[in-house]
Amino acid sequence: MAEQDSLDAAQQPAATGDMEPEAFRRYGHQVVDWMADYLGQVGSYPVLAQTAPGDLRRALPAQPPIEPEAMETILADIDRLILPGITHWNSPGFMAYFGITASGPGILGEMFISALNVNAMLWRTSPAATELEQVTLEWLRQMLGLPEPLFGVINDTASSGVLHALAAAREALADLHIRQKGISGRPEVPRLRYYASQDAHSSVDKAGIVLGVGQEGLRKIPTDAEYRMDATLLELAIQEDIAAGWLPFAVVATVGTTSTASIDPVPQIADICERYGLWLHVDASYGGSAAVDPHMQWILAGCERADSLIVNPHKWLFTPIDCSVFYTRKPAIVKAAFSLVPEYLRSDRLSEASATATLPDGTREHLRQVEGLGDETPNLMDYGVALGRRFRALKLWMVMRYFGQEGLATRIREHQRLAQLLVQWIDADPDFERLAPAPFSTVCFRAHPRGLDDETALEKLNEHLMENINKAGRFFLSHTKLHGKYTIRIAIGNIRTTEQDIRDLWQQIKD
Amino acid sequence: MAEQDSLDAAQQPAATGDMEPEAFRRYGHQVVDWMADYLGQVGSYPVLAQTAPGDLRRALPAQPPIEPEAMETILADIDRLILPGITHWNSPGFMAYFGITASGPGILGEMFISALNVNAMLWRTSPAATELEQVTLEWLRQMLGLPEPLFGVINDTASSGVLHALAAAREALADLHIRQKGISGRPEVPRLRYYASQDAHSSVDKAGIVLGVGQEGLRKIPTDAEYRMDATLLELAIQEDIAAGWLPFAVVATVGTTSTASIDPVPQIADICERYGLWLHVDASYGGSAAVDPHMQWILAGCERADSLIVNPHKWLFTPIDCSVFYTRKPAIVKAAFSLVPEYLRSDRLSEASATATLPDGTREHLRQVEGLGDETPNLMDYGVALGRRFRALKLWMVMRYFGQEGLATRIREHQRLAQLLVQWIDADPDFERLAPAPFSTVCFRAHPRGLDDETALEKLNEHLMENINKAGRFFLSHTKLHGKYTIRIAIGNIRTTEQDIRDLWQQIKD
Repeated sequence: MAEQDSLDAAQQPAATGDMEPEAFRRYGHQVVDWMADYLGQVGSYPVLAQTAPGDLRRALPAQPPIEPEAMETILADIDRLILPGITHWNSPGFMAYFGITASGPGILGEMFISALNVNAMLWRTSPAATELEQVTLEWLRQMLGLPEPLFGVINDTASSGVLHALAAAREALADLHIRQKGISGRPEVPRLRYYASQDAHSSVDKAGIVLGVGQEGLRKIPTDAEYRMDATLLELAIQEDIAAGWLPFAVVATVGTTSTASIDPVPQIADICERYGLWLHVDASYGGSAAVDPHMQWILAGCERADSLIVNPHKWLFTPIDCSVFYTRKPAIVKAAFSLVPEYLRSDRLSEASATATLPDGTREHLRQVEGLGDETPNLMDYGVALGRRFRALKLWMVMRYFGQEGLATRIREHQRLAQLLVQWIDADPDFERLAPAPFSTVCFRAHPRGLDDETALEKLNEHLMENINKAGRFFLSHTKLHGKYTIRIAIGNIRTTEQDIRDLWQQIKD
Repeated sequence: MAEQDSLDAAQQPAATGDMEPEAFRRYGHQVVDWMADYLGQVGSYPVLAQTAPGDLRRALPAQPPIEPEAMETILADIDRLILPGITHWNSPGFMAYFGITASGPGILGEMFISALNVNAMLWRTSPAATELEQVTLEWLRQMLGLPEPLFGVINDTASSGVLHALAAAREALADLHIRQKGISGRPEVPRLRYYASQDAHSSVDKAGIVLGVGQEGLRKIPTDAEYRMDATLLELAIQEDIAAGWLPFAVVATVGTTSTASIDPVPQIADICERYGLWLHVDASYGGSAAVDPHMQWILAGCERADSLIVNPHKWLFTPIDCSVFYTRKPAIVKAAFSLVPEYLRSDRLSEASATATLPDGTREHLRQVEGLGDETPNLMDYGVALGRRFRALKLWMVMRYFGQEGLATRIREHQRLAQLLVQWIDADPDFERLAPAPFSTVCFRAHPRGLDDETALEKLNEHLMENINKAGRFFLSHTKLHGKYTIRIAIGNIRTTEQDIRDLWQQIKD
């Protein structure tokens, strides 16, 4: 009883200061129980939120809280107000877009990250954050079978990463002094152009808009029958553009496109980039993770020649969102595109002087092979837009250690096995039609009943089919269009998805 | 004993699948106890990490983990390996840069965010996330005393926000079709120019580099004796640039600059922006939060005329990093600069049809006053670079409710009171010299012993003074340069900082 009283006293915030640590402990335990219950039953919620627009907005006061509220009230509102409006990305039935997972070790990592609350902008503003980022990305490089040296940095998303890649590619046009002078109003700077397949992610378009290159600066290269960039057409396009006065500067290849998970022919594209002196960026945000399985490392063939490469552990390495890994073989150029160090962020001389400490195993020698890789105390804010940087490496480190490379590979193989089951069922059923190869764990198909060949009717049928499945709640699928055909996508990537889920989904689709 | 056995069995990950929920529960409770202990004793660690470069890197294996490791081992390594390399931003003694705080309710919010793991890119991908973001930012708007209507969206950092603001400002040059055609190689697009004070944040420079405007595209306007942008010089610069063929397009004003927390004269700057048709962006990342105290709302005078405005709850509203609020009166232009909706992200017709639901209190009418504000189901990925978006509104919502506007204001007032104590002591001491006004809770000063007037000696003395304080471990301060003088900054902003901390710090400085 005495304990209860002291807890009640602690739960009201003091006039100043934070929630008392003992109150935090009590609420923290409550929240952990909530989290464990949620993770245990996440499959029982309708995956796609079944709420109407404005439901939550109307349920909340129009005016802000003036007085402090009891944490009990706030916690109760999570269940009462928030949960009904959640689309459960952590559900085994989530197979829309690309699956993502907050695994147990990743969530525990997020808990540490939030309590430590460091800003990993400079080495000194948390040496462990900067160094752990470098170590985990070095581990991941090895897991993916990519040759060293490779400099890595974690961004929020691949959208930021491709922007950084293309900014560096533009900076690599060194004699134009773009960083200093910009690109407009300068007769010596022609219109810039970069290339990606017509199935590349929309973030590739967006990056060009931001950089001032414009949507017309991105030339989309047609794909072959398996949705892979046609390298011959790429080279023709480059030649045509050069002749017309454009300045080509980069190519974005994709390993695992968003629509069909197709794989562009990176080795041929790398040849072309070499021939024309273009920056090669590889977007392996989704597909790259599969290479933690040594048998799948063929998917990254040619990527050892890429200037930059993105793999998103928050997609298919079971790490909570957000965590997007950006690798580059040319960190000095990326840094040249972004580094700005005002006086108030200069580190003291002490830490700079001690940067001469020795490293074992010739690591330093290896690092020095690429300019910019020898720095033991990099300030990671120098490699992108954001100055403020969460300690994202911590959750990735916990995920990598808890599962190990073998555990990660086993789970990714299982997802691919489940996708192949679906592929077999679809291919064996005369009323369904597969619309693309499935090199990873994403399956594109549509219902195509015997005798029904009207495209408008097929589109309606499949749209209706998908809406019904999404309304039923157990699963959430999304769609794309392939050669004008409405295509249902099943993307398997949540760590909790089992064979039973896939069997039940196929049963629902057939019904 | 039986329970222990079942827990031990659960702690090993299955061949596939996640950590078992009961194992997560057990580790989660352990981590909460760690977090509560950490928060209770965070002031006892050396604030600035005392490790040497490479310490953590050398302590970790050079090869990645192949087999799964026990969570117990990983958790033990947090204390053994990670903690010594942490700079404790959550410490009451952290007074470098700008203080930040992960408060108890904010950390609890992060726990929910990581378990739910939603991607708030589209309304439908978690309606609660999108709507809570809009409600909390509407609450914050009211707390700050800013007039409606105002559209808000949460970014990771103000560095992203200012990039978005300037991209929108450039997009507002509508007849140049910059989104479509880019800015290079087009005789009709002159060199672009934007303006900020010489004390503006380095992210303002970086945004221009990324946008292709270049460092020369940013003209830095001198400041007055109190480090505020000189509006007269701003107007002269604009006139001069127009005459020389530049195309001015934006001005960035700062409320709370990084060096001295000075406040640019926003009303005069807004007049100038109106006269010349320029986008006005206000960077109130640090200072803006102070306006939750109604007595401090004068700091945002003129901001009701800004086209965009940033306030960072992760700086001075006790919300864990990252959480940066971007407000705009012109969401349609921001959206025009960024929106790209590929087929695989198109929402179904169902949710679009129901967007006609009615709202109470004429809210909709108010919202419709600004184009783009009437949409109940906005897809927030349309307002910036990142497609993937964490559910950051949840932590902000919990912080706002737990403390209430009054609780937040009380804490911010307390920080200002503590800063004023320091100001009094410095001003009263003939061996110290204050180097800038302190409108918020950041104090700039140096030791200036009677009779010592050699500037080089003074720089060495103050550098030495700051290094000694940082080495002693109880406090962490950073520096800047003001009119060439090495200046020590004390930035009070952590929720745990007390008057005793400030008294002890002053004693250390004097010793």
